[in-house]
Amino acid sequence: MIRGCQLIGDRDSQQGTETFHTLAPASGERLPGCFHEATGDEVNTALELAEAHADTLRFLSILERARLVELIGDSVERSRHQIEERCLLETGYPSERVGMEFERMIHLWKVFANEVRLGHSLDARIDHSDPDRQPMPKPDLRSMRVAVGSVVVFGASNFPLALSVGGSDVISALGAGCPVVVKGHPSHPGTSELLGRAVLRGIQDAGLPSGIFSLIQGRAHEVGLALAKHPFTRAVGFTGSLRGGRALMDAASSRPDPIPVYAEMGSVNPQFVFPEILTADAEGFAKQLFASVTMGNGQFCTCPGVIVVPDGADCDAFVRAYQKIISNSGAMPFLNPGIAEAYEAGVADWRTSCQAKLHRSPQRSGPVLAEVSWEMFLAHRKALLEEVFGPSTVLIRCPNPDAFLEAAKMLPGQLGASIHGTKDELTSVAKPLLAALQRFAGRIVINGFPTGIETAYAMQHGGPYPATSDPLHTSLGLAALARWARPVCFQNVPEELLPDALKEANPLGIRRLVEGEWSEATRSEL
Amino acid sequence: MIRGCQLIGDRDSQQGTETFHTLAPASGERLPGCFHEATGDEVNTALELAEAHADTLRFLSILERARLVELIGDSVERSRHQIEERCLLETGYPSERVGMEFERMIHLWKVFANEVRLGHSLDARIDHSDPDRQPMPKPDLRSMRVAVGSVVVFGASNFPLALSVGGSDVISALGAGCPVVVKGHPSHPGTSELLGRAVLRGIQDAGLPSGIFSLIQGRAHEVGLALAKHPFTRAVGFTGSLRGGRALMDAASSRPDPIPVYAEMGSVNPQFVFPEILTADAEGFAKQLFASVTMGNGQFCTCPGVIVVPDGADCDAFVRAYQKIISNSGAMPFLNPGIAEAYEAGVADWRTSCQAKLHRSPQRSGPVLAEVSWEMFLAHRKALLEEVFGPSTVLIRCPNPDAFLEAAKMLPGQLGASIHGTKDELTSVAKPLLAALQRFAGRIVINGFPTGIETAYAMQHGGPYPATSDPLHTSLGLAALARWARPVCFQNVPEELLPDALKEANPLGIRRLVEGEWSEATRSEL
Repeated sequence: MIRGCQLIGDRDSQQGTETFHTLAPASGERLPGCFHEATGDEVNTALELAEAHADTLRFLSILERARLVELIGDSVERSRHQIEERCLLETGYPSERVGMEFERMIHLWKVFANEVRLGHSLDARIDHSDPDRQPMPKPDLRSMRVAVGSVVVFGASNFPLALSVGGSDVISALGAGCPVVVKGHPSHPGTSELLGRAVLRGIQDAGLPSGIFSLIQGRAHEVGLALAKHPFTRAVGFTGSLRGGRALMDAASSRPDPIPVYAEMGSVNPQFVFPEILTADAEGFAKQLFASVTMGNGQFCTCPGVIVVPDGADCDAFVRAYQKIISNSGAMPFLNPGIAEAYEAGVADWRTSCQAKLHRSPQRSGPVLAEVSWEMFLAHRKALLEEVFGPSTVLIRCPNPDAFLEAAKMLPGQLGASIHGTKDELTSVAKPLLAALQRFAGRIVINGFPTGIETAYAMQHGGPYPATSDPLHTSLGLAALARWARPVCFQNVPEELLPDALKEANPLGIRRLVEGEWSEATRSEL
Repeated sequence: MIRGCQLIGDRDSQQGTETFHTLAPASGERLPGCFHEATGDEVNTALELAEAHADTLRFLSILERARLVELIGDSVERSRHQIEERCLLETGYPSERVGMEFERMIHLWKVFANEVRLGHSLDARIDHSDPDRQPMPKPDLRSMRVAVGSVVVFGASNFPLALSVGGSDVISALGAGCPVVVKGHPSHPGTSELLGRAVLRGIQDAGLPSGIFSLIQGRAHEVGLALAKHPFTRAVGFTGSLRGGRALMDAASSRPDPIPVYAEMGSVNPQFVFPEILTADAEGFAKQLFASVTMGNGQFCTCPGVIVVPDGADCDAFVRAYQKIISNSGAMPFLNPGIAEAYEAGVADWRTSCQAKLHRSPQRSGPVLAEVSWEMFLAHRKALLEEVFGPSTVLIRCPNPDAFLEAAKMLPGQLGASIHGTKDELTSVAKPLLAALQRFAGRIVINGFPTGIETAYAMQHGGPYPATSDPLHTSLGLAALARWARPVCFQNVPEELLPDALKEANPLGIRRLVEGEWSEATRSEL
């Protein structure tokens, strides 16, 4: 079933002579499967195929697009057993974690299918003409979102299901009407291939050309850059490291025709803890923090990597409690040796360069709390505020809650940030901090951690650089669809030539902005 | 009144020793006024001032922000006479054109004030919690747009009023809650200064700190690049040439922290003409085209620069008619010598390199029709599809209307594109062309020209590169506000800490997306 090849539309392709394999993170053993590195030719063929079918998908009705998304979800669900089995081997995640992520992925196909069917993401708008307006007649103006064209998606290492070949970027791009070429993450090529085949079967079930989807695999950076640089690529979706994301941003912005890269990258998701929370229950707080930090073995984009706590006895109690939990924690293998090495190097640097006091579990690569004084933080803030991907948290002991504002000023863009406090603390002193967080964070959580992301309308999984490449967009939540389609205005276009979404009679029955008012009614009913 | 200095908040600054002046396009005479080139220090001071006041504007209520926009508009209107007088001298535009643009600008302040007051651009969303949801409780999620911070706006040469110091980018950025530093266009520094002073008086009328607005002047590219590279700059708005826009895009994308540049750049706005339109009235069509091409002396972003017409007697009749109009047309001075030189060089290149047959008026820099055969077009399409800013139009004689689709495939991103045809032609054969235009154009006009842009909800003044830097946005129309604020999600934030826009009781009475449905009702009313 796993052949180790590129899936270029319905064709298995094995042009490349270079191959790679994967190791089981849990045991370090080599996993079955020999994967071929994609060649430049294969990249080109995939994008030519995508381009050839771009119009098919672009002009497909929302009902058919919704059906496509739904049928792919069904197809992926039918392969659950196989996919989960391989995913467990390739990630070393607990089986409960893999099961939950699988369900999350299936849920995504369903909710996006529904959202596409509702037509909200078309953002249909109508401003009627006024031929009698002075000094000039007002034209009839209508606009809707039209798919941008072929999209390249880079699978994430840490979410091999919900943020990879069958994940949010792929689902939202197909749902918006864009062909997709996925670059599978080399940590889980087997999972990627199984998912890719399931996606292709779903496309077949929908009766659509398989060329709207391809899966390219490889470890070489050149493959990724070739995908981002290809003239037919119209946009890029990426979830991963700052280094990887920035390389793609630079490649895309230096094209003869720059294209957008929607990259979700580094974030330390700072947690500001008012003292009374710890006075009340330092141990309970430590437990909750630990649960959040170690989700997915610490490999979550929204992992709380920085915690700012006023110095004192409450802080000491918290550190003792956290240290105790850490020392009793079990093994947490990393997804791949590269992540493990970067983690160890980053943690070591905190100790040697920033004089951080490390609390960690006996086993290598386990959770770490790196404690620094306020003075050390001020002296080494750049290094201490950089993400070290994994279950690591920097504890900044600040003189008092007033210093929260000072710390907040130093933070670069973040996906998330939290304030923890009692009801009294929140109402009496947290307001200026809440304002400060709005300068740099995409999501602000009160008395909770940023891990755990709803697929809701109000979800924002984004933030200023370096959290993402474009803070106006989100890669998770229903607004993720907005990245893949651009507004096109139709001026004085006769009814019979208008797309269905903009026809006066509203045959799709979708919500539209008519003269600035939301309306599902047709004009005759108004 | 015109002192030739930078307006840095409420302070006139003349640090620079280099000065420049302007020439009257109509007469070539030197205009009064000696303008100082801004220094790096002045750029820095302006942005430090903007940053210092960013929160004031960011957290100002929409009612106060709307009032600010309104009061600035009033202030600008009070200086109408002076501004128009100087603008006429600096642009060489007909006085009717300047008067119309002034009114357009005043209209913009009013409609944006209204739009800000309505709160639509906050894009407020609420997804209520569900504590009983299994397997995990659903959090309360609310999101709204929060101003990105200081914005740098580059004034356009061709719209010294409506797209410059008092124009769409400045109005929408202030309306979205962002301090603005404007780089005035060196073609009309006097107009810019008068406008800048009027803007500052309006800010004073609103009782807000003048530091939210500065005007920087200069001819050196370094000034512009320093503005785009400044660490406090969070976004850039630009209208101008492809070369200038791309330089800013490159500067912004190579920053340590890349920021978005919303640049509206080059466009030839192709016109596809089905034959029966010309059979019916070649002369009438020629007149309409000429009126569109020569708006603002040909210096409109949406000027129809390419016209594709099936070869034959109808085409001949059109060329004769257009040639006749051209030869009777009056002088049309360019805004500055640079534009005039580029125009002449571009037109000359069409003749020498692309074997175009030129039809032009007796006077230098007048309107030009450059006629090429289909073969020549295919051989030199790159040069022929590049914008030559001014009243120039390339006429491509194609074999038949089927060739429209072939021509459409070669076009890069465009702000606008039109189809001209009789009712019969439109319904029988135009559909595939309409689909093709949706691949590259931001706005599609039937039986009209793209010049003339409504400030409506459905307006899209954007398109794929090189028309703009980001096809998902528009620089004109009400959606222009969306560029300057980013979504921030508030998770489980208690009512008393929420911004007014997201409070359950909806004290602002704004339209919000509640559980995916648009609503102006509060929850208790639902």
